Amino acid sequence: MSSEKPDARGETLDAFHRGNFHVLQPKGEGHRSGVDAMLLASLVAEEGPITVADLGAGAGAAGLAVASRLPGAKVTLVERSALMADYARRSVALAENAHLAERLSVIEADVTLTGRARVATGLIDDSFAHVIMNPPFNNAGDRTTPDRLKAEAHAMTDDLFETWIRTACAITMPGGQLSLIARPESVSDIVAACGKRFGGIEMTLIHPRPDADATRILVTGIKGSKARLAFRAPLFLHGEDGHAFLERADDLSNGRMAYHRRIGRQTRVTVI
Amino acid sequence: MSSEKPDARGETLDAFHRGNFHVLQPKGEGHRSGVDAMLLASLVAEEGPITVADLGAGAGAAGLAVASRLPGAKVTLVERSALMADYARRSVALAENAHLAERLSVIEADVTLTGRARVATGLIDDSFAHVIMNPPFNNAGDRTTPDRLKAEAHAMTDDLFETWIRTACAITMPGGQLSLIARPESVSDIVAACGKRFGGIEMTLIHPRPDADATRILVTGIKGSKARLAFRAPLFLHGEDGHAFLERADDLSNGRMAYHRRIGRQTRVTVI
Repeated sequence: MSSEKPDARGETLDAFHRGNFHVLQPKGEGHRSGVDAMLLASLVAEEGPITVADLGAGAGAAGLAVASRLPGAKVTLVERSALMADYARRSVALAENAHLAERLSVIEADVTLTGRARVATGLIDDSFAHVIMNPPFNNAGDRTTPDRLKAEAHAMTDDLFETWIRTACAITMPGGQLSLIARPESVSDIVAACGKRFGGIEMTLIHPRPDADATRILVTGIKGSKARLAFRAPLFLHGEDGHAFLERADDLSNGRMAYHRRIGRQTRVTVI
Repeated sequence: MSSEKPDARGETLDAFHRGNFHVLQPKGEGHRSGVDAMLLASLVAEEGPITVADLGAGAGAAGLAVASRLPGAKVTLVERSALMADYARRSVALAENAHLAERLSVIEADVTLTGRARVATGLIDDSFAHVIMNPPFNNAGDRTTPDRLKAEAHAMTDDLFETWIRTACAITMPGGQLSLIARPESVSDIVAACGKRFGGIEMTLIHPRPDADATRILVTGIKGSKARLAFRAPLFLHGEDGHAFLERADDLSNGRMAYHRRIGRQTRVTVI
């Protein structure tokens, strides 16, 4: 992404996908979207008409990236924070995003709502072909989180994956796909939360460089699948030297390529 | 490894570490040791006098590999199957392994024993600096398992990691290291079984080639550590082309190199 207009209000207008869409974000407040959101969006790899929910969408970067690459995607951005939901609405309304706006909507709601309270927000059972999420995590080990908003966005609770993936499963169509990006140490919580909800889990570790520890993990799963878990080939962002992205990482980040699962979404349902 | 003498009894004498030690194995019966056992052994990376238990040792390949590379290691091979324990004893007694034999012993016992029954076999609480294991797994998805012995060695039960890692924790010194090799789909069971027993988990995915799914996972942990889980850089066995091992995989397999953890075994215990 490239930030174009930091202004007096402490906002930036950031260009993604080489300028194909923009996101308005608070500067120094809240969680700022970047490469994580773009890699998450690359996991939706289905042409044709699909419905997509972006849970915990923030200012909307990942959801907009899906809409930007896939002309058949209708994307619902779900965000709890009133401030960030407002940024999402303003991002959707940007003149720069006019070509995407009719396929985007925003729901201001807590992802962890259940039952009727969840349905009342518009998050209907079995209604999305794809659900994507970049759940908040606590960055305390890495750096200080100075402001309240960032702390809130990064607040990790013990059952975060359980509650988020429970909602994801409820709103995903049978055979639909969950996609998420998270920290590698969450691997066991993620698998446990997928449980019998999402199977055929495919994980890809993201390493900044080939000899470095993984810093993120990409995870996809299919609702109701019983296929076994696999770790795909790792994704290296940079080579051993230099600061430029490697070609594949750059293609995925810039919307020129989707990351395809081995076993995709299952659209045929066998009725016995 | 290289097999030297397949004979009429259906046994092979296999050379490892470029001939530094040999293992007698049944041919076509039981689980045959090879690269997995060598990579497992490479995870023990501590010079000086140490005690090592190899749980589910089979004919002894991994334990012998530790003794071969580390002159300070005293290794106890633990094997339930009477047949395989006999192979382990005969492997230790080989003339080719005379330089290692005094540092090797065999216990014929079920790894899942608990309490006094376990202690009675010689598996004493808090007595090993390192515990290594290559737990049996069911290969049914990959190929048929024709004979009873192989089926037994590959029998995966739901609580396999729970029971094996429980024993590993019991017999490991405080601050001691668990090392294991397993199939990647077991990642969540392994983390769950480590629980509060072993922390500072470091995982390394093994991929046959850089663009292939992982086929094995190397896992180490430190008893009582609270450090968070990390995924280390992946290990590729082969390059994109060709059948030769890459240099690092070859060095690890042939005992020329140990695989060092970021945070090693903790030998200092603070008494408050």
